[in-house]
Amino acid sequence: MSLQAIYKKQPLVHCITNYVVANFTANGLLAIGASPVMADAVEEAADMAKVSDALLINIGTLRPHTVEAMVRAGQSANAHHVPVVLDPVGVGATAYRLETVRDLLAQIQFQAIRCNAGELAMIANVPWQAKGVDSGSGDMDIAAVAQDVAKKYECLVIVTGEVDVVTDGVQVAHISGGAEMITRVTGSGCLLSAICAATLSVPGEPLSNIVATLQDYKHVAALADATHGTFQHNFFNALQQQAEVLV
Amino acid sequence: MSLQAIYKKQPLVHCITNYVVANFTANGLLAIGASPVMADAVEEAADMAKVSDALLINIGTLRPHTVEAMVRAGQSANAHHVPVVLDPVGVGATAYRLETVRDLLAQIQFQAIRCNAGELAMIANVPWQAKGVDSGSGDMDIAAVAQDVAKKYECLVIVTGEVDVVTDGVQVAHISGGAEMITRVTGSGCLLSAICAATLSVPGEPLSNIVATLQDYKHVAALADATHGTFQHNFFNALQQQAEVLV
Amino acid sequence: MSLQAIYKKQPLVHCITNYVVANFTANGLLAIGASPVMADAVEEAADMAKVSDALLINIGTLRPHTVEAMVRAGQSANAHHVPVVLDPVGVGATAYRLETVRDLLAQIQFQAIRCNAGELAMIANVPWQAKGVDSGSGDMDIAAVAQDVAKKYECLVIVTGEVDVVTDGVQVAHISGGAEMITRVTGSGCLLSAICAATLSVPGEPLSNIVATLQDYKHVAALADATHGTFQHNFFNALQQQAEVLV
Repeated sequence: MSLQAIYKKQPLVHCITNYVVANFTANGLLAIGASPVMADAVEEAADMAKVSDALLINIGTLRPHTVEAMVRAGQSANAHHVPVVLDPVGVGATAYRLETVRDLLAQIQFQAIRCNAGELAMIANVPWQAKGVDSGSGDMDIAAVAQDVAKKYECLVIVTGEVDVVTDGVQVAHISGGAEMITRVTGSGCLLSAICAATLSVPGEPLSNIVATLQDYKHVAALADATHGTFQHNFFNALQQQAEVLV
Repeated sequence: MSLQAIYKKQPLVHCITNYVVANFTANGLLAIGASPVMADAVEEAADMAKVSDALLINIGTLRPHTVEAMVRAGQSANAHHVPVVLDPVGVGATAYRLETVRDLLAQIQFQAIRCNAGELAMIANVPWQAKGVDSGSGDMDIAAVAQDVAKKYECLVIVTGEVDVVTDGVQVAHISGGAEMITRVTGSGCLLSAICAATLSVPGEPLSNIVATLQDYKHVAALADATHGTFQHNFFNALQQQAEVLV
Repeated sequence: MSLQAIYKKQPLVHCITNYVVANFTANGLLAIGASPVMADAVEEAADMAKVSDALLINIGTLRPHTVEAMVRAGQSANAHHVPVVLDPVGVGATAYRLETVRDLLAQIQFQAIRCNAGELAMIANVPWQAKGVDSGSGDMDIAAVAQDVAKKYECLVIVTGEVDVVTDGVQVAHISGGAEMITRVTGSGCLLSAICAATLSVPGEPLSNIVATLQDYKHVAALADATHGTFQHNFFNALQQQAEVLV
């Protein structure tokens, strides 16, 4: 029922995200009743963050000036008690991404990190074979590593995949279901990170709210399951329907 | 019948717009037979504007170098009698957006401003409660304020909402209809601004041409009305069908 | 059967492309089983190119720092035997685009150039009337000019249009079919360039592989043919189906 809570609140979600998925992210947020606003200029990032209900920082297409905007927005959000979510897209792909994520984690207090297993491994410094912005392959105890990262950065860690794992460092929840096809729609993970940010702006216990959001998202993906074009079409319908269903 | 006039002319529309809606804007223009071209580098903005039939300046995702490109493109368009439309997206959201819009209005002669009520209020310096890039809420006589802004900047002012208001400072037209769902598709206002730019490139009286475009756009939205994914799908079909219908 | 070969290999395709079509390009690659990664920062372009299976350089929305990233990525790809494809979007539209394309051609060894007739004319310095990023109109022997360009730059030249022409400078192939509607979906040419890059990463003779890709793409367009919204929907379905069909 988490998407319904977002629909009820209609939070303003400030997204500093990559240009590949900006449209998809905005439409996904609008479909569930949230209000997206994209603003990644150094000149306005802090101002936008402080009037928002939640902030998403996504490193999908990094640029130096955007990184500076991320830091300003994140610190502004921290100062104004606006929850901040980090999506470390492809952090294992280049040294620049890894350095940037380390800087962001050092300068901003995130309420949640939303990533895939490969990105988690890189943040935790565990061996892994990444492939671009995909998860890649490797062998680790995801829940244990996620707990370590959650404790270290004092935030929720949300690792999505065939089975999602979410932890605050102590409790661990697993969520299964969904549809494999969602991994072939660009931005599906990025949008989920934005929806997690929106989730952290609604009343209630953060961990259980995030679990409900992950369950809803897997349910939406299962409802949408189809070949690529039809999946995209169904997905936005299902997001809206899931958010607007009567409680 | 305004979309049909655009379809007949196939104008080249230079768009300096935000990365959230660039794809949607390009496809919307293509659906009605116009030719979009996006070019926002300082190095080429003036060159592109002067060979275009219309120019759109949209501040949705500002950057300092883009603002410089906007000024060069706008002044080039003015020098070559190419109509220019301003879309002051979220001008009330940050000081940087407001300063930028004031600069653009000072340095470029626009033929039209296309905005929502909240953006109009901010340009006119009327109290209003904005919410990110959404219209927000407040209380003013939209037509009267739009007339003042139209007189001050010597241009058409097009304020869209449940009822659209368009004025040249003297005459005022109201257009109703449409579908509320269009407000939940990102870029629907931005695309309309681009279509208004295209409209100003076709023969005829600008104000009545814009009224016809607004009527067409509301008609297209009503034809497309559905949940989110289906709306997007229907919307491009309806745009094309409305533009290509036999006169 | 070229899309099937891509589906089998699942190549990582590094795209430095414009923000108008980045989402469409990523989804098109994902639909056929490739893994897109977008990275256009100077700080990481070379690192990303060297771990990729193919590189696309598309000049659709140029910026000076992106040009520098293109050069670094292209030279890194050359050094690591990663195939590179150039898409000179709208090279005839402004002096800045032409200078940039000349620089890129001087500094990077491309394996293929994918363009329309107007862009070919500009690269070959043949008179032509361009229109923004559209092909425009003119009169030349496309095959002969393409052969000259292929010889000069020692690469394949792929000129798409109602009839596609592809040449290595000696052999020339023509591919007909498709659907005119594809020219009204933004990014359809840009995506094809990315798929050509993916094609060059699979085993086999490059020219005949590219011919097979062009045939597949025209077949997909014909399968998708419909009005604008339905075309987009069908197109991703048809891409996936064509790539996944049993050999």
